[in-house]
Amino acid sequence: MPERPLPTAEEVRSYIRDRRNWGRWGKDDQVGAINLITPAKRVAAARLVRTGRSVSLSRPFPKEPGPNNSLPAHHYMKTLSRGNGGFAADYYGIFYHGVASTHIDALCHTWDEEAMWNGRDPKKEITFEGATFGSVEHWAEGIITRGVMLDVPRHRGVPSVTQDAPVHGWELDDILTKRGIKLEPGDAVCVYSGRDAWQSANPDTAYGKPYGGLAQSRPGLHVSCLPFLRDHDVSLLAWDMLDHLPIGYDIPWAVHACLFAYGVALLDNALLEPLARACVDEGRDEFMLMIAPLVVMGGTGSPANPLALF
Amino acid sequence: MPERPLPTAEEVRSYIRDRRNWGRWGKDDQVGAINLITPAKRVAAARLVRTGRSVSLSRPFPKEPGPNNSLPAHHYMKTLSRGNGGFAADYYGIFYHGVASTHIDALCHTWDEEAMWNGRDPKKEITFEGATFGSVEHWAEGIITRGVMLDVPRHRGVPSVTQDAPVHGWELDDILTKRGIKLEPGDAVCVYSGRDAWQSANPDTAYGKPYGGLAQSRPGLHVSCLPFLRDHDVSLLAWDMLDHLPIGYDIPWAVHACLFAYGVALLDNALLEPLARACVDEGRDEFMLMIAPLVVMGGTGSPANPLALF
Amino acid sequence: MPERPLPTAEEVRSYIRDRRNWGRWGKDDQVGAINLITPAKRVAAARLVRTGRSVSLSRPFPKEPGPNNSLPAHHYMKTLSRGNGGFAADYYGIFYHGVASTHIDALCHTWDEEAMWNGRDPKKEITFEGATFGSVEHWAEGIITRGVMLDVPRHRGVPSVTQDAPVHGWELDDILTKRGIKLEPGDAVCVYSGRDAWQSANPDTAYGKPYGGLAQSRPGLHVSCLPFLRDHDVSLLAWDMLDHLPIGYDIPWAVHACLFAYGVALLDNALLEPLARACVDEGRDEFMLMIAPLVVMGGTGSPANPLALF
Amino acid sequence: MPERPLPTAEEVRSYIRDRRNWGRWGKDDQVGAINLITPAKRVAAARLVRTGRSVSLSRPFPKEPGPNNSLPAHHYMKTLSRGNGGFAADYYGIFYHGVASTHIDALCHTWDEEAMWNGRDPKKEITFEGATFGSVEHWAEGIITRGVMLDVPRHRGVPSVTQDAPVHGWELDDILTKRGIKLEPGDAVCVYSGRDAWQSANPDTAYGKPYGGLAQSRPGLHVSCLPFLRDHDVSLLAWDMLDHLPIGYDIPWAVHACLFAYGVALLDNALLEPLARACVDEGRDEFMLMIAPLVVMGGTGSPANPLALF
Repeated sequence: MPERPLPTAEEVRSYIRDRRNWGRWGKDDQVGAINLITPAKRVAAARLVRTGRSVSLSRPFPKEPGPNNSLPAHHYMKTLSRGNGGFAADYYGIFYHGVASTHIDALCHTWDEEAMWNGRDPKKEITFEGATFGSVEHWAEGIITRGVMLDVPRHRGVPSVTQDAPVHGWELDDILTKRGIKLEPGDAVCVYSGRDAWQSANPDTAYGKPYGGLAQSRPGLHVSCLPFLRDHDVSLLAWDMLDHLPIGYDIPWAVHACLFAYGVALLDNALLEPLARACVDEGRDEFMLMIAPLVVMGGTGSPANPLALF
Repeated sequence: MPERPLPTAEEVRSYIRDRRNWGRWGKDDQVGAINLITPAKRVAAARLVRTGRSVSLSRPFPKEPGPNNSLPAHHYMKTLSRGNGGFAADYYGIFYHGVASTHIDALCHTWDEEAMWNGRDPKKEITFEGATFGSVEHWAEGIITRGVMLDVPRHRGVPSVTQDAPVHGWELDDILTKRGIKLEPGDAVCVYSGRDAWQSANPDTAYGKPYGGLAQSRPGLHVSCLPFLRDHDVSLLAWDMLDHLPIGYDIPWAVHACLFAYGVALLDNALLEPLARACVDEGRDEFMLMIAPLVVMGGTGSPANPLALF
Repeated sequence: MPERPLPTAEEVRSYIRDRRNWGRWGKDDQVGAINLITPAKRVAAARLVRTGRSVSLSRPFPKEPGPNNSLPAHHYMKTLSRGNGGFAADYYGIFYHGVASTHIDALCHTWDEEAMWNGRDPKKEITFEGATFGSVEHWAEGIITRGVMLDVPRHRGVPSVTQDAPVHGWELDDILTKRGIKLEPGDAVCVYSGRDAWQSANPDTAYGKPYGGLAQSRPGLHVSCLPFLRDHDVSLLAWDMLDHLPIGYDIPWAVHACLFAYGVALLDNALLEPLARACVDEGRDEFMLMIAPLVVMGGTGSPANPLALF
Repeated sequence: MPERPLPTAEEVRSYIRDRRNWGRWGKDDQVGAINLITPAKRVAAARLVRTGRSVSLSRPFPKEPGPNNSLPAHHYMKTLSRGNGGFAADYYGIFYHGVASTHIDALCHTWDEEAMWNGRDPKKEITFEGATFGSVEHWAEGIITRGVMLDVPRHRGVPSVTQDAPVHGWELDDILTKRGIKLEPGDAVCVYSGRDAWQSANPDTAYGKPYGGLAQSRPGLHVSCLPFLRDHDVSLLAWDMLDHLPIGYDIPWAVHACLFAYGVALLDNALLEPLARACVDEGRDEFMLMIAPLVVMGGTGSPANPLALF
């Protein structure tokens, strides 16, 4: 597959530096590429609904400790009586970034040595009370747009992406061509890599861990997917596998650079196998996608239950 | 307004006992009235989208202590370096029931002396690990349906519902008639009572508190709203004010009884003022409503950011 | 009582600036006045034990919300089966600074516009991972020393200190004189102000709240207690009432300045009424005092159950 | 070493059933063998203090995820300004049972198919709000007694106890004999097994995990240590290695049965290497031991920083 030459270090640098969207929606913009989702775009997304089938893209809230879940979420119960009845209530707690929880990344989540989204300085914007720029409440009205499935295992005829064959940007373009899909500005792309099949085939290998850093290995999307996101004016990338590691270039973030360079949102650890299956069943590659992040002032993202509606 | 006689204790008992939906969708059903939201219903909801205006029904994640927030949510930050860049990540924790957080109640949340939803025994179903019946993951595919605004202050010509004038079920029917709205099975009703206006007018009175129990006073919806929900086969009630207290009848739960008696979902502490305003602006009382609870196995509900799309 | 003139602003400034202990135990010292507790001092403390009566100085872990507890501690339970038996386990969580929890303050806890303990810069030393200077693990071997009771209500013949009559440093010296106590370097002083009696007499007034800031009023110890701590080479101050507020001088911290200026430890919100009573019963003003902070690397203090042994 | 025959199943059963201390201090007693620590016992413990050397028996608060720490403790920081100064404060959260945290077990922590301590029924006593019998606040006055070191690696001349050679009760008696130690009622025994040396020698093997259950293997103390605790009227066992697993008998708890059968307290995951070293240095096997559990109403134990004073 990767007959095409890999980008040079200079080209990769150019993805992040030369093509960035800083200032595109104003120098103080905190919404980023989600600006591409206009009211008209939402109307068009709703027009896609035909059968009414709803599919969740969320993994279960990750309560169980495990190799892929070194900081398990908390779920604690209480019951209380009330008159001659009662009620149950519970506490949810989660450090949701990492590889266990389906969550959205806000624009403030990552940065490189230069800056955060729109050129801001993380030393100033990241405080003990939360982020003061690019935080998740700027997406409070939700992300409602056309979602498009890019099913890599189906394209390749394999169960999953593997360590030796990362997903390159040109392969995503190949899928568009082969499937006859035309991306439009503001679309959300769902890149399915078969993570669960990969995990089943590699039961003793953790996909990743929080704080794992750059030294890890894991299959996923190559940094060459960055220009794909930029060229097509994608608003959000939903993926089950994340950045391929090692990156292979001396940069702190590969595809995750789309947050600070392009203002493109990320939906990490999406559960995409049921969605991929639904696309096959329905004979479609597009659907109405709805993501409703919790309205946390200063939050760096949010756990979420994204919904695809056919 | 309340010229109509209040229901007798026997009538109230009949709302809860005689009209309950136990067994209606099977004796092991854990979905309740959300079953009324069929794929066709979702398609019809999507057909309502015309201008693409999106409105959040969520209050901010309640981090600040205060009279209405005795168990504040947690938001704790971390930053970590990664190569020559870095990232920020955060912990969210919340005991979301109560009066501070916009959240959905699962069917397992409340019970009276007889039973939980579908006749189950809370002593058996509520465990330290979570609820084993009627928990929130049964709504993982989301609640996507037609939402209908019932704007009580607008109907009354006042800023808000007040302690001396609870919202009765017949008033909701009056609003339907006056506005020419026809409810259909599976609709979600949004009963706006002007909670924020009330709070501004009563700055020193807490609206309520977790564990406040039955002895509190607060304005809200009268138990006579129960048959309204049942008669119209409502799937979900979104409200900013909750049950009027004191209830005035010897029962542990007033409108909250719809959870265990009818299988009707509740969206507590919704932020409805912007939605009411949008309805006026758009000249409409209906919209596509989307609620995506977190997929917490055994959870009694979920914080949520419900979205209305016009 | 306060016939003596209050200190001038310049004198107060001098308490904090001129008399500070920076460098006294080395410029990199993170132990502060706890250095005064030598092995010989611990042996002498143990020699005080005669009757074997043990008294806890800890309030209950503050789980209940309330006016003095706006950020309640968490206590969540689990049970798990194990073979044909089982076990119960629980989660404790606490944001322990504030007025609800009995806790020790590490030297890094407070600072003024100049610096933290030993002249360090809080901007550098306080990180998202914890404090890198003056944190609580430097007291991991515990604080075991002679404790001395200074019972202000007993001295005054009143149930408690009140807002109009703060505890001044000279009053503490008067108590020493009257009771015939001679303080020695490294002693811990327990200043009992009758907080619980005060709270009973003022049921509707909160003693304080986290983040309450400088604008609050509350009875307690006047900034003139600072030179008392310094003159007597006190190692730790245990108190039930905290700094009198308003301070009355334009400084961010009154008695709490002993942390960064003198390296003196603070044990906030101690439960001192039972200890005061025990002192009366035993006919003594001194005892062996033991405080064992949790060994939290980078922690700014610790909840604690201090023990007095007679 | 284990030339002596292992106890039969019947003998083990007899340890737990026939020799139990139920009713010994009254049928409603919640203090258990800590009752053996009389005021006179505390005075005698204080009399042991000679050099004033203080040693912590606490591991660091376990914040880092890892094979032995699948539910890491939380440490989250805040800074806040105050006038022209400021302060740092932090949140500590911990699910402290398991193998990572140095903590004390309350009597309510474990049970077998018959009952909890003093014959109570866990179904009744363990609630969502905490335990209503045998909880940790009954030890609020602290555990202050004579501590005695039983250094197994020193006795064996090896770096650590290993999986193939559990510590049997008779070996502990052998150590007493060899070292010329006479145990007295109410003593706390510190059984050092060299856990850290073992971990260093077995870097890829986790010592254990919460919820690991009975199927695990790990070196530690054999169930034959139960009668040792009972014969000598031990009040508390501090240990670095825990029960040897597999137990080898069809019982849910081996040495941990001392909680519900004898009312003997356990101090799990103590850091005993520095204490063992101090004993060698000081030429002593005994010291004053102080444990101050947090006063958590209904708590099943407490994280702790136990202190040994020589």
